[in-house]
Amino acid sequence: MPQVFRDSVEILDTTLRDGAQGKGISFSAQDKIAVVRALDELGVSWIEGGNPGAHPKDREFFREARALRLQTARICAFGATRRKDASAAADPHVQNLLRAETEAVVIFGKSWDLHTTEVLRVTPEENIAMIAETTAYLVEHGRRVFFDAEHFFDGWTRNADYALLTLKTALTAGAERIVLCDTNGGAFPDTVAQGTRAALDVIAGRDGVLVGIHAHNDAGFAAANAALAVKAGCRHVQGTLAGFGERCGNTPLAVAIPGIELKLGLPCLPPGRLERLFKITWQVAEIANIAVPENMPYVGAAAFTHKAGMHADGILKRRESFEHIDPALVGNGRHFLVSEAGGRSAIAERARKIYPAITRDHPLAYRLAEKLKALEASGWQFEGAHASFELMVRRELRALHEETGGVSSGGERAAFFRIEAYRVTTEHPTSEVLACSHGWVKVWVDGQEEIAAAEGDGPVNALDGALRRALQRFYPELERVRLSDYKVRVINGGAATAARVRVLVESTDGAAFWNTVGVSEDIIDASRAALVDAIEYKLIAVREDRDGHAALKGESHEK
Amino acid sequence: MPQVFRDSVEILDTTLRDGAQGKGISFSAQDKIAVVRALDELGVSWIEGGNPGAHPKDREFFREARALRLQTARICAFGATRRKDASAAADPHVQNLLRAETEAVVIFGKSWDLHTTEVLRVTPEENIAMIAETTAYLVEHGRRVFFDAEHFFDGWTRNADYALLTLKTALTAGAERIVLCDTNGGAFPDTVAQGTRAALDVIAGRDGVLVGIHAHNDAGFAAANAALAVKAGCRHVQGTLAGFGERCGNTPLAVAIPGIELKLGLPCLPPGRLERLFKITWQVAEIANIAVPENMPYVGAAAFTHKAGMHADGILKRRESFEHIDPALVGNGRHFLVSEAGGRSAIAERARKIYPAITRDHPLAYRLAEKLKALEASGWQFEGAHASFELMVRRELRALHEETGGVSSGGERAAFFRIEAYRVTTEHPTSEVLACSHGWVKVWVDGQEEIAAAEGDGPVNALDGALRRALQRFYPELERVRLSDYKVRVINGGAATAARVRVLVESTDGAAFWNTVGVSEDIIDASRAALVDAIEYKLIAVREDRDGHAALKGESHEK
Repeated sequence: MPQVFRDSVEILDTTLRDGAQGKGISFSAQDKIAVVRALDELGVSWIEGGNPGAHPKDREFFREARALRLQTARICAFGATRRKDASAAADPHVQNLLRAETEAVVIFGKSWDLHTTEVLRVTPEENIAMIAETTAYLVEHGRRVFFDAEHFFDGWTRNADYALLTLKTALTAGAERIVLCDTNGGAFPDTVAQGTRAALDVIAGRDGVLVGIHAHNDAGFAAANAALAVKAGCRHVQGTLAGFGERCGNTPLAVAIPGIELKLGLPCLPPGRLERLFKITWQVAEIANIAVPENMPYVGAAAFTHKAGMHADGILKRRESFEHIDPALVGNGRHFLVSEAGGRSAIAERARKIYPAITRDHPLAYRLAEKLKALEASGWQFEGAHASFELMVRRELRALHEETGGVSSGGERAAFFRIEAYRVTTEHPTSEVLACSHGWVKVWVDGQEEIAAAEGDGPVNALDGALRRALQRFYPELERVRLSDYKVRVINGGAATAARVRVLVESTDGAAFWNTVGVSEDIIDASRAALVDAIEYKLIAVREDRDGHAALKGESHEK
Repeated sequence: MPQVFRDSVEILDTTLRDGAQGKGISFSAQDKIAVVRALDELGVSWIEGGNPGAHPKDREFFREARALRLQTARICAFGATRRKDASAAADPHVQNLLRAETEAVVIFGKSWDLHTTEVLRVTPEENIAMIAETTAYLVEHGRRVFFDAEHFFDGWTRNADYALLTLKTALTAGAERIVLCDTNGGAFPDTVAQGTRAALDVIAGRDGVLVGIHAHNDAGFAAANAALAVKAGCRHVQGTLAGFGERCGNTPLAVAIPGIELKLGLPCLPPGRLERLFKITWQVAEIANIAVPENMPYVGAAAFTHKAGMHADGILKRRESFEHIDPALVGNGRHFLVSEAGGRSAIAERARKIYPAITRDHPLAYRLAEKLKALEASGWQFEGAHASFELMVRRELRALHEETGGVSSGGERAAFFRIEAYRVTTEHPTSEVLACSHGWVKVWVDGQEEIAAAEGDGPVNALDGALRRALQRFYPELERVRLSDYKVRVINGGAATAARVRVLVESTDGAAFWNTVGVSEDIIDASRAALVDAIEYKLIAVREDRDGHAALKGESHEK
């Protein structure tokens, strides 16, 4: 008789535990609480908070986490089965698991006999006893136990009887989740499907028990392994939202969840939450200070970005012709690249906001294509700097109207200010009365000169301060504008500090975000160009808002 | 009767065509030739060179490519089936395919009926005629034809008869490869396996014809889809080495190839080539100016990087306990993270080169763990800056010996120089006689003072020039040292230009490469710290080489 499976899938996020084992990731206590809040807003069922025995800051975290009012998520503690030479009651790590006072505890134990003898250095029988006793002890003390069967698939393909015995042992001792781990990340999706079916046979007939999957991406199969395990009947998926984790990372839940919800029709999150996926994945990545890969499925900035002219044409005829899902379902957006290679169709599509009358055959489209080609050849890229692109459209539009003597039909703007000169100095050691960097700038606004100076923690900070101080006399609306991100990329690595650099600046006024770009051999001058665009963009936005436009709308998405 | 499949898999790399449709990727004619050489060195069978009708520079490329003496790879041209309103002979794009003078031509045609009516706007029958005539015309003109069945899986799940008819049509007209494309990247691996089996039935009995797979990663399944297609009998795999491509990218061949060779036992490359995979993937990514993701399976810098102390312990007992393959098989290496979280075992492992007597319980290991903890808390990271880590080990070792009054046992070093003061100024507009940035530095070496100045294209370049000029009087060996890469990362995005920045510098003396790090709120001072470490590392290396050591060996891998 075929088994009947639950019609939803439970999600356990381990960003704070397995994710923190990824290279370059380190969470402060404050970061961990911020991650918990974000994951709860997304609506996952469980959050693995860490190993309360491993670090003092993890114990602190569990104490703070108990005070949070979470909507959907519950915290669980994570730790190993008891040590080989102590009872569960006498093992301080097991005691720490209890002290975390969580509803559920995830314990991991070996399912591959090689690991028992070669790594733990216990007999396979002793390993079984460790699983049984630890599970039973935690259950006796009122905990729901999830058993992570470490190395399950490697064990199952080599010694299936032993691997399945470890599952039966945990189940008999009271575990409610039997989680099949591909710890080394080398299992094939079809093997995972078969192993999942074998595990489902073990739990058959047990109410309230689910088989789970915990995959790693070492062979590039983590998302596929989670998906095929669910197709085979698994109903508990572990992973990390953005895919962080040891070596090549864990199953990225931001990829697994939409695949399961949209393609297998099994809800993982409460209704209406999937559309928060993009925003919350970026939030969690931001907390970890790791960039979301541009081409990450579903949530990458370029996941629905079309470059080939033929694809852009197809999409404009029928969305599904070149998109596997509607990007809005996961809160992402469609983009057509403003690149010379993208063709005039894509350029016209993006310039339409500024000049609605543009078509691919309009003189402005030809002009922009030429301009982009020249700028791209010298290292500019507007793909991540939509505000700078729009300013370029306005400038080219103005130039076109001047040349043709045509009547302006909106969109173009005269310059708001001009920097005549600036100087930035950085020196060490610093004196007692002055910061290390000093900026000085002379601007002209409407025939009036203004000179301002500022000090700062670095040269760009000092220049930014001086420039905004000089302009605030004329444009008080700049007071609320601040830089929210600053990135530097060396364009041609060969010449290193003498190479051209591209600076990307993200600015915010507290509500919207916008991105600008500058390129130069001099990092200060590249920053100056990006800062100037950022200010100009804001000044236009304020004026168009007054006129009933809204230049800043939708720009936060660029982030 | 079960079909018998060929015992090797043919690889077609489309980095130069589909890869160039990825965001941020643009190849010059010179880049394209460099990519061809690299792929030939790896040993792929086919290189898709581009669409000779699309850009003038693509036509130029095919002319140059014909002159190359390649060992294993052959170039193929790529283009669409003939237009709906012209015969193949009268279609200029088809004529351009012939003019490319390649042995093989890849043509793509629609296999999903939705696309014929909604995107191409032709009847399904006319689409069949377009496939048949274009294939036959190219075959008549002496070309081997590979048919890319665009949208095959989407078409096959909706209208299997029509999708299979397009394959039969190409086959009957003389196509030698029937390539199943998951153009939108949304197909599940089990669907791909089933579709592949259906296509294999179509070609059954045809000698010399192979079924191929061309997958995209929009659902995170590209690598799995390629692998399961091969398991089902497909013997031609298309992809891009580093995974570049439209939207979320193509099947990364750097992931697919080792999976097929090492786990399915089917050779894709000539013997001995797989171990070049790491190096050549990095080369191709370098040419494209795209970073290889750190956690990319098989070829990422962190693909075999162990952070959890328990994993490091396991690996040291049995390699396969936490590694799905031996990293040397693909030319990659194992790393233990020098992070406070990695534990003293990993720290000791990495410090052993400087101080062979270190163990996890040595006072130096405790001291380094403390130091790392404090530095990491203020934004330092040594994971990508091995030279700076080694300098820290030497400094801590010296401090330890001074405290304990112990006899030096090698490894530690006195400082080579000290910067007493520096000043860097950047100004615009520049004068006719001076570059935009000027650096000034005062150093002390062995009780002697030296002041030097330099100008540069930017402040870091000017400081670097002044510092090296001041030191060359004492250390002429610095003349050949130059910076080969320079990266800046803002650590806490919140404060933007006032935030702390981490600068990573890669230096080279023409033979070795080494990486150093600096952190500060001031980008100039962070750069100063990384430059100072880079110079000190080189000075030590020169002295140890004289003494029979070789501090620089193996560092190029850090890159």
